[in-house]
Amino acid sequence: MLNFESDYIEGAHQKVLDRLVKTNMEQLSGYGADCYTDSAREKIKAACNCPDAQIEFVTGGTQTNQLVIDTMLKSFEGVVAARTGHVAVHEAGAIEYTGHKVLEIPGYEGKMKAEDLDSYIGTFYADGNHEHMVFPGMVYISFPTEYGTLYSKNELTQISDVCHKYKVPLFIDGARLGYGLKSPDCDLTMADVARLCDVFYIGGTKVGALCGEAIVYTKGNRPEHFDNHKKRHGALLAKGRLLSVQFDELFTDNLYFDISENAITLAMELKNAFKQKGYELLLDSPTNQQFVILENKKMEELAKEVKFSFWEKIDENHTAVRFATSWATTRENLTKLIRLL
Amino acid sequence: MLNFESDYIEGAHQKVLDRLVKTNMEQLSGYGADCYTDSAREKIKAACNCPDAQIEFVTGGTQTNQLVIDTMLKSFEGVVAARTGHVAVHEAGAIEYTGHKVLEIPGYEGKMKAEDLDSYIGTFYADGNHEHMVFPGMVYISFPTEYGTLYSKNELTQISDVCHKYKVPLFIDGARLGYGLKSPDCDLTMADVARLCDVFYIGGTKVGALCGEAIVYTKGNRPEHFDNHKKRHGALLAKGRLLSVQFDELFTDNLYFDISENAITLAMELKNAFKQKGYELLLDSPTNQQFVILENKKMEELAKEVKFSFWEKIDENHTAVRFATSWATTRENLTKLIRLL
Amino acid sequence: MLNFESDYIEGAHQKVLDRLVKTNMEQLSGYGADCYTDSAREKIKAACNCPDAQIEFVTGGTQTNQLVIDTMLKSFEGVVAARTGHVAVHEAGAIEYTGHKVLEIPGYEGKMKAEDLDSYIGTFYADGNHEHMVFPGMVYISFPTEYGTLYSKNELTQISDVCHKYKVPLFIDGARLGYGLKSPDCDLTMADVARLCDVFYIGGTKVGALCGEAIVYTKGNRPEHFDNHKKRHGALLAKGRLLSVQFDELFTDNLYFDISENAITLAMELKNAFKQKGYELLLDSPTNQQFVILENKKMEELAKEVKFSFWEKIDENHTAVRFATSWATTRENLTKLIRLL
Amino acid sequence: MLNFESDYIEGAHQKVLDRLVKTNMEQLSGYGADCYTDSAREKIKAACNCPDAQIEFVTGGTQTNQLVIDTMLKSFEGVVAARTGHVAVHEAGAIEYTGHKVLEIPGYEGKMKAEDLDSYIGTFYADGNHEHMVFPGMVYISFPTEYGTLYSKNELTQISDVCHKYKVPLFIDGARLGYGLKSPDCDLTMADVARLCDVFYIGGTKVGALCGEAIVYTKGNRPEHFDNHKKRHGALLAKGRLLSVQFDELFTDNLYFDISENAITLAMELKNAFKQKGYELLLDSPTNQQFVILENKKMEELAKEVKFSFWEKIDENHTAVRFATSWATTRENLTKLIRLL
Repeated sequence: MLNFESDYIEGAHQKVLDRLVKTNMEQLSGYGADCYTDSAREKIKAACNCPDAQIEFVTGGTQTNQLVIDTMLKSFEGVVAARTGHVAVHEAGAIEYTGHKVLEIPGYEGKMKAEDLDSYIGTFYADGNHEHMVFPGMVYISFPTEYGTLYSKNELTQISDVCHKYKVPLFIDGARLGYGLKSPDCDLTMADVARLCDVFYIGGTKVGALCGEAIVYTKGNRPEHFDNHKKRHGALLAKGRLLSVQFDELFTDNLYFDISENAITLAMELKNAFKQKGYELLLDSPTNQQFVILENKKMEELAKEVKFSFWEKIDENHTAVRFATSWATTRENLTKLIRLL
Repeated sequence: MLNFESDYIEGAHQKVLDRLVKTNMEQLSGYGADCYTDSAREKIKAACNCPDAQIEFVTGGTQTNQLVIDTMLKSFEGVVAARTGHVAVHEAGAIEYTGHKVLEIPGYEGKMKAEDLDSYIGTFYADGNHEHMVFPGMVYISFPTEYGTLYSKNELTQISDVCHKYKVPLFIDGARLGYGLKSPDCDLTMADVARLCDVFYIGGTKVGALCGEAIVYTKGNRPEHFDNHKKRHGALLAKGRLLSVQFDELFTDNLYFDISENAITLAMELKNAFKQKGYELLLDSPTNQQFVILENKKMEELAKEVKFSFWEKIDENHTAVRFATSWATTRENLTKLIRLL
Repeated sequence: MLNFESDYIEGAHQKVLDRLVKTNMEQLSGYGADCYTDSAREKIKAACNCPDAQIEFVTGGTQTNQLVIDTMLKSFEGVVAARTGHVAVHEAGAIEYTGHKVLEIPGYEGKMKAEDLDSYIGTFYADGNHEHMVFPGMVYISFPTEYGTLYSKNELTQISDVCHKYKVPLFIDGARLGYGLKSPDCDLTMADVARLCDVFYIGGTKVGALCGEAIVYTKGNRPEHFDNHKKRHGALLAKGRLLSVQFDELFTDNLYFDISENAITLAMELKNAFKQKGYELLLDSPTNQQFVILENKKMEELAKEVKFSFWEKIDENHTAVRFATSWATTRENLTKLIRLL
Repeated sequence: MLNFESDYIEGAHQKVLDRLVKTNMEQLSGYGADCYTDSAREKIKAACNCPDAQIEFVTGGTQTNQLVIDTMLKSFEGVVAARTGHVAVHEAGAIEYTGHKVLEIPGYEGKMKAEDLDSYIGTFYADGNHEHMVFPGMVYISFPTEYGTLYSKNELTQISDVCHKYKVPLFIDGARLGYGLKSPDCDLTMADVARLCDVFYIGGTKVGALCGEAIVYTKGNRPEHFDNHKKRHGALLAKGRLLSVQFDELFTDNLYFDISENAITLAMELKNAFKQKGYELLLDSPTNQQFVILENKKMEELAKEVKFSFWEKIDENHTAVRFATSWATTRENLTKLIRLL
């Protein structure tokens, strides 16, 4: 059976796995005090062109969002996100669990607009007393978004400017960062991302690793006693090497970007196939997640030979579904999929 | 340099690693919906002689303790632990972070006494109104304890009886469970452990895995919507296979216990060497952690050639230190260590 | 200076205050174990026509919302509210502070629609897996709403039906309950309210008391160990008499409703005056809060002689403001106000 | 029936009540923006000889402890208290509910020792890495303690010195502050208290008020956005006047101290009566709570005519009980009590 249900159905990229195997019996200190943590940090700093970046490794995306948001916000602050943002909808309340509100503003195909953000935060400065409300203490965006869309350099700069104007840090969820940066529509580099935000994370789980995300604090703003924060959140691995070795390999010889490119090349071919065969796209995604509207009959027929994800019901006869490519998707399987359409 | 500083300095046991490599490119659904999760569960049920056990996999010990305790306690309840228990001292407040108090009672070389427990919980039933206090809603013990010591079957049965008497569930932290069960002093099997408690976990991180602990609910008492709880705690891995494949291998052909035995055999030899060479032990540990009191001069000398852990200051001239063996410790290195003593 | 800025600018109704004075030196046990707690409970049960109601007294509205919501929700659940609901906007994050998400659905002049609610909750039953989302575990509405509007008996019954259909409890915030029930537009009694919801509170702070709200659990559903919950939330008064004596008086000889009527009579006169003088109302409120749109020049002029509340900016030249009447508003002051318009 | 069961069995002191009555119909802004809040603050500053003090009013003691501790601690910090401290034992977990651990050190008749404190905190600076532990971020003591005992000026200075040495703020719970300061054994003034700690509270509930505690930040260290913190904790009263008017009166013409003195005078007479009649005291309390050991037979006999509090079981035949005097206790009732002994 073909499988396009997500970008985390295989294990790790072969080179990443080989590195784990090769280093396996080295005796290394725990909790991040190993040489690969240092090495991976240096490589990521270089890739971000941000020599002062502070970098931390944790296992997954929800954990990252929870940890970053909880430890950067003051107790009376919340995080602003698009209404469709992952932290607003699909983290099972992990942010509220830490005591913080997600302050929702409109989303447009997953993206917030700088003007909406300016208007929202501006209210807290424009008039009267807001002590009975939750203060916006951080802005969260995802890149790519949950709908596969991307902010342009211009859009991201505008959002960044609003954040600076009000001195509110900008946090970018990069669970699929590689797939965004390698999109033909992307005019941003990782260095741009690092420069325009205050903290972001480089997703490993969906881009070549068995698990792991690298949090990058770009402005010398990592919260103090960070190991303690990680431990308290249940996010501190005894064998920190599991994360550092993988990221050390992903940022050796451009691997992270090269394997991201594979996903994008195949996703663009898939999108073209949909278009050529007359399918209606839910939206025009420039990244590795492709959303298409299927007649239910066609959907059921396809489902016998390929796995994909239910996205949303359109009407009685139509459903939007998602096909995801990844670093691991093969041309062979893509060709088979296109034949089935 | 020799290294006995902890039982998590190497990666995974070779067989565990091989299995990860072998299954790496299989396409598996995420979040625990993979075939290895089912398989590992069945093998663990068999090993526990507990066919109705409900088993969940998470990445680390603090995360496990936080998740199990938070989701089993009612909001007005706390967890009873020995004053030296890991959850009382060394989790960076991860339990309190979930809003629950750790209710401390005396510890004796890491162990609580059934009579102290009975007396503590009994107070809440014996007299008056206790609405201004935190109710004991769970009992936590570690096996082996943080001091390497073990409860006998008789002692554990007594504690279990007190828990049943008051209908308070018993939770056993088995971060080093294998090393406890393979101790020559242990008269308990994993089936006994499963029978006598309500929930326990089988530590993988310290016993052969790269990461991972298996939580075993033994009485049909896993909290509902457990995936949601895991997600909310930041503990749900997208690639659940990372945990399930490892545990599937650890519980194939008795691997978990066989590799635990290596640690114990070598630890007992080390203890004997300490005794024969006239060292004073801090306590008589029957498991893989050995605690010895060194003259500071000797300690500094040793530290040039071998890594071990500071445990506590005894007096101006003496320090207690810990040497840990594990599944990965070699006889060759142990022999070198003994020669240095 | 005239003052219509809120409905909590005076102290207590004279009869309530007299009762506090009269009982002041009686020696009464603390924490709610006083005779007036029993007496007030009986009177409220009778007023609700709900002999099995369980009633608890706390000091203020935010505290009530926080306590009721936190102790009725399971840890993986959130509370559904209109986007303009008090718990969604103006509690400074007090709900999220307890770890629970406020799940926002559209509001229409402060009210939610039963069909929106049905559709929202229905999603969780209609399709697929929702373990990554926060489950709707309670529905919150305010009566009157934050905009002074009321649900009709028909509307409330529909909402109640949706709640029953999905077995989700309905909670009604009655901070201004008396002012709602005495509105000429209201076709509900307090007994109807009690019957149609699972828990509601009778606001005292805004209706005759110095402080205090009475929480009414109408279905035998008060959480166990409620004193402990109150204590843990910092909501348990040592001198519980302060609350019970006041409610005992408010529910003697229909006082609560009689004094509510005064506010409504004067508010309707004020609304008519606005209309007659050609002012545009922001909305047609049938209760004690009246919202009117003023030209900014007129607003500034009025502000020299009367206090009112800023509500929202309409455009560059117009502002919506709120005038509130209460049990304490005098006809004399109302007449003066109308003359100024 | 005589009643000595607690110091909160009556309402408010007559002068306090009169002031509430007198100001009742004044129209005052809510949430602390009333003139009496300003006035009470000025009077308390004068009484503390601390012109820069920042003063906040809340309703009760648990609420105060929860709010002060939660808002002063950083997220990775806990509060150090004697094992018998109110926050450690009798707040129903209100501190842990905010996510913070209470770090317990030994108590001696309710008091901690400066040397124990120094040793405890010192550990975090003396050796190694403590990132897996909860950092001591505040010290909590009660004055008088839960056992009625007092710190001498010398003892308090020593504790204060330890706090300064490690830059950890000192918080004094003054639920019964007046009864401590008016004790014949007390060599401290309120100005001394203010000088030696970083924040303390002046208990009103037990000393003349219907409810209310005044939090005094003595070093310009009140957390920012304090109204928001209060709201989020459910601790912000709409009618702030209820608290401010009472404290304004309590700090007019020395009332707070004069009425405290009554409790102490009578308590000392009671203690002497116990001694003269040959009763064994549990401990020698210099304040308004007196603890005496009774034969159970005598206890049951007494209980027919006077209410007092169970404290603890001594042995099969003896029980320690507490008799409390207060500002409201009359000589007449004390004489009756002594006759019964």
